[in-house]
Amino acid sequence: MNAPRPTPNAVPHAKRTAVDRFALLGRKGCTIWLTGIPAAGKTTIALALEDALLTAGTSCIVLDGDTLRHGLNAGLDFSDAGRAEAVRRAGEAALLIAESGSAAIVSMVSPLAADRMRVRNRHADASLAFHEVFVDAPVPVAEARDPKGHYARARSGDLPSFTGVSAPYEPPTAPALHLRTDHANVRQCVDAIRAIMTK
Amino acid sequence: MNAPRPTPNAVPHAKRTAVDRFALLGRKGCTIWLTGIPAAGKTTIALALEDALLTAGTSCIVLDGDTLRHGLNAGLDFSDAGRAEAVRRAGEAALLIAESGSAAIVSMVSPLAADRMRVRNRHADASLAFHEVFVDAPVPVAEARDPKGHYARARSGDLPSFTGVSAPYEPPTAPALHLRTDHANVRQCVDAIRAIMTK
Repeated sequence: MNAPRPTPNAVPHAKRTAVDRFALLGRKGCTIWLTGIPAAGKTTIALALEDALLTAGTSCIVLDGDTLRHGLNAGLDFSDAGRAEAVRRAGEAALLIAESGSAAIVSMVSPLAADRMRVRNRHADASLAFHEVFVDAPVPVAEARDPKGHYARARSGDLPSFTGVSAPYEPPTAPALHLRTDHANVRQCVDAIRAIMTK
Repeated sequence: MNAPRPTPNAVPHAKRTAVDRFALLGRKGCTIWLTGIPAAGKTTIALALEDALLTAGTSCIVLDGDTLRHGLNAGLDFSDAGRAEAVRRAGEAALLIAESGSAAIVSMVSPLAADRMRVRNRHADASLAFHEVFVDAPVPVAEARDPKGHYARARSGDLPSFTGVSAPYEPPTAPALHLRTDHANVRQCVDAIRAIMTK
């Protein structure tokens, strides 16, 4: 038996490009990034999209901001730095998932445009599609839903930096898609996202 | 048009299990974790495995320890805590990749058994396959390869906690596969890994 090739050939060769990978696989990975204020409907849409894609045989996974804080983003706080790092790590994980040929469906408030832009740029550098989807509902509508009771706690001062109440949300200026969840239902939102995924 | 369902139905429903996901997709994700001392051949094998899988139409991605330090693991040092966190994040990313239906091929020294065990347990909790592969070569063989000149620097005292020289490596006690890269060539190693992936 032969030993693996020695120096310098053992130095890792350049990785395949995404274009090359997807040509071999016959399918493309991408990132769908759902941003919006709490209770705008991001995770509801993300999970419905995941269901639709899985049923259609499309590899995918939801990266939910709350869930990630029990895993990849465990230990981070809700300071600006903590949020930026949470978005950064989710973006890096999404990048790897997309590069593998799956659809990464990220559901995170990700309130700051600069944090989202960094993720977008990382995808562009790797020639990977990054679809920014603005999941939009007026604060009063989201507050009326308030499934976790967070708006009520924020209004009472119990949550000091809660996006939409006591912390800023910077809406996307040029999203791939702008969904108004006070007008469109979940099915319509999912269909609209699937339509841009084919572009 | 109907609005999305309000509270409490807007609360995210339980995620699909991996078993359920893979049944819908008709393919399974998994994690292949290559551990071993520097220059044992981990990344060479990982990239050759990736090539073989892509050519066979299997979604996959290499998570290389060095490369991750420019992305997901940027900013972490080589202290025990920094290494543990690097392994943890790689493990969490691999978990998401595997859950999406792709093969995550992790190539990291990951010297401590406890750090690897935590990743294994996370996968077991999610009913995801975790294949630990011990990429093994004697230190003198790895040191003779030394593609990055790290062993030489470690011997001179320039790298204070270099695994195999100035920091411990805890070999797996029950790996799914034990590869001796001083005996087997790259093709043989890749074939052996592909064989356990079907189990």
